[in-house]
Amino acid sequence: MASTVGKTITCKAAIAWEAGKELSYEDVEVSPPRAHEVRIKIAYTGVCHTDAYTLSGKDPEGAFPIILGHEGAGIVESIGEGVTSVKVGDHVVALYTPECKECKFCKSGKTNLCGKIRATQGKGLMPDGTSRFRARGRDILHFMGCSTFSQYTVVADISVVAVQPDAPMDRTCLLGCGITTGYGAARITANVEKGSNIAVFGAGCVGLSVVQGAVAQGAGKIIVVDVNPAKEAWANQFGATDFVNPTKLPEGQTIVDKLIEMTDGGCDYTFDCTGNVGVMRAALEACHKGWGQSIIIGVAAAGQEIATRPFQLVTGRIWKGCAFGGVKGRSQLPGLVADYLDGKLKVDEFITHRKTLSEINSAFDTMKQGDCIRAVVDMS
Amino acid sequence: MASTVGKTITCKAAIAWEAGKELSYEDVEVSPPRAHEVRIKIAYTGVCHTDAYTLSGKDPEGAFPIILGHEGAGIVESIGEGVTSVKVGDHVVALYTPECKECKFCKSGKTNLCGKIRATQGKGLMPDGTSRFRARGRDILHFMGCSTFSQYTVVADISVVAVQPDAPMDRTCLLGCGITTGYGAARITANVEKGSNIAVFGAGCVGLSVVQGAVAQGAGKIIVVDVNPAKEAWANQFGATDFVNPTKLPEGQTIVDKLIEMTDGGCDYTFDCTGNVGVMRAALEACHKGWGQSIIIGVAAAGQEIATRPFQLVTGRIWKGCAFGGVKGRSQLPGLVADYLDGKLKVDEFITHRKTLSEINSAFDTMKQGDCIRAVVDMS
Repeated sequence: MASTVGKTITCKAAIAWEAGKELSYEDVEVSPPRAHEVRIKIAYTGVCHTDAYTLSGKDPEGAFPIILGHEGAGIVESIGEGVTSVKVGDHVVALYTPECKECKFCKSGKTNLCGKIRATQGKGLMPDGTSRFRARGRDILHFMGCSTFSQYTVVADISVVAVQPDAPMDRTCLLGCGITTGYGAARITANVEKGSNIAVFGAGCVGLSVVQGAVAQGAGKIIVVDVNPAKEAWANQFGATDFVNPTKLPEGQTIVDKLIEMTDGGCDYTFDCTGNVGVMRAALEACHKGWGQSIIIGVAAAGQEIATRPFQLVTGRIWKGCAFGGVKGRSQLPGLVADYLDGKLKVDEFITHRKTLSEINSAFDTMKQGDCIRAVVDMS
Repeated sequence: MASTVGKTITCKAAIAWEAGKELSYEDVEVSPPRAHEVRIKIAYTGVCHTDAYTLSGKDPEGAFPIILGHEGAGIVESIGEGVTSVKVGDHVVALYTPECKECKFCKSGKTNLCGKIRATQGKGLMPDGTSRFRARGRDILHFMGCSTFSQYTVVADISVVAVQPDAPMDRTCLLGCGITTGYGAARITANVEKGSNIAVFGAGCVGLSVVQGAVAQGAGKIIVVDVNPAKEAWANQFGATDFVNPTKLPEGQTIVDKLIEMTDGGCDYTFDCTGNVGVMRAALEACHKGWGQSIIIGVAAAGQEIATRPFQLVTGRIWKGCAFGGVKGRSQLPGLVADYLDGKLKVDEFITHRKTLSEINSAFDTMKQGDCIRAVVDMS
């Protein structure tokens, strides 16, 4: 490895040159890390709906060309000046929600939304305002501070966490987004109480991880709501107590009616893992009067709005949301890896498909099918 | 007083015979209290926007004929079988939010919304499904479990609380709704932290009481937002640190922009005391990313909806609401009366107008003018 330190590395990446087009598997030049930056040899990456959303061009903030991917695990190849939190050879997970431990947000004790590099990350640049990627003679943008669809990537030192080296990286990569988002939403954002009744809308990787978090918290009824009947078996496998297909309800009964009936007045906590604003409303309105909380996790399409009658809130329901499950990546991700290693957090079960980097476009196709929970991409 | 016990009392009331018409000052027959009921000689009542809203006919659940009024103080004239919480001669405040201490809601420790008599109260009837009022040979409906626009009224024993007899009743009547709603919203529902920046939209009785609650909690900036410039002096009198008139902002600056600028990123807590759904949205969006909470207190017109982009919640803002300030009337109202008697809670200052029961229609007219905070009606 020593031979690459301080040098530009040429490796393979899947580059998104244009919105709505396939990714291009080709060479990219990855510059060495500058001060407070870390270059990672990515071993595995997951493929997430957010990558597909940006690639589609529907995200008004999406810019091109860019290297997507934000669910990645790998090994530190080299570090820039001043980096003390990780060292060469560490097994790491990239963090799209950084944690500087110094900004107003990190110090508040109330949120995981670090503000330190928000502006440059949003523009697809490193904190100094430049890119570390070049291809075909052009600078390529970074994505969500991660860009894990490249065999090597450079991230800010606050955007990476070292985890236990005995945890397989084809598993830990999934803790970089979906699993942590759902598990954290139940355990940290909602902090579901023992015996609470909960409903989870959408049984993908995030929703099934909410179920896992609710099981860990000792929830009572854990009701999974999904229009895909094949998801019932998945829900059961992760510990759901009930499954409801909203398209199979009796004439005139809404999903809100059904959930209120099943829980004697409404759910204590509901979680939207769909990104559909109509579902978000149903999730709120299925909450128990007086205290029910609905947590929005799914990302809605640009311009879409949620709505309800204010009476829903005046009578005690609470509407909130979270990003990355409220998890502070550098402080809390090793704890999730420990839960995985101790057999308390299912990860292996999510991997339904495996691809190589050159096959990444088929991983996107696979994701859009109902039988895919997570496709893991081998970067080697 | 003994002579009236067990007998029907004929007294004066202001009866709402039809939506959109003036109240009629006339005789009403008030039956004796049945089991678990209390008959109160009302001494003073406030007039609140909710009374006007129901009278207007815009409330789809409003029914007629009815005796309105829900902000009243008086003396217990007689009690029905099984009443142990108050006795004849007690000084009391009527509670439109009852507290049975036995139902799922009361026992939850999470809400003040008692469910015990909700169904009958919503229909304008006593818990046994009948009315205690008759006039012109017809049954007259009860309102919000209180009907304080009658010299005598009958309420459920869970809808009344005995308070300190040395507190003047022309003051304690106002603790039956507006003051308690605002003060409780700041102290109980939001539980504003020391040093927090808050914004209050609407500087009526409720909004100014939010200001008082925020002062008691040690808030930092307390910004009052109102389109009426005369409210600036009111805001200052109750302890606000800043006043903003949203109609006087520079071209292109919204109230949300202004509040975010004044608080370096947004308010920690905002309160809607207007009932306007557009204001409710601004109140949410003026909250600080990561943790800002917006509390809806105002009652919106029927059918109106609140809306926002879900991104506002995913990035950590919390949307909630409360009724009666989250205050449990029987457990907590005597504490507010104590705060008043100790000089910690301003009440006298709210009384801008005084009327007799026969002048009650002019109290409604007065309420619609900007210089009226509260009109108190002398029932004698």
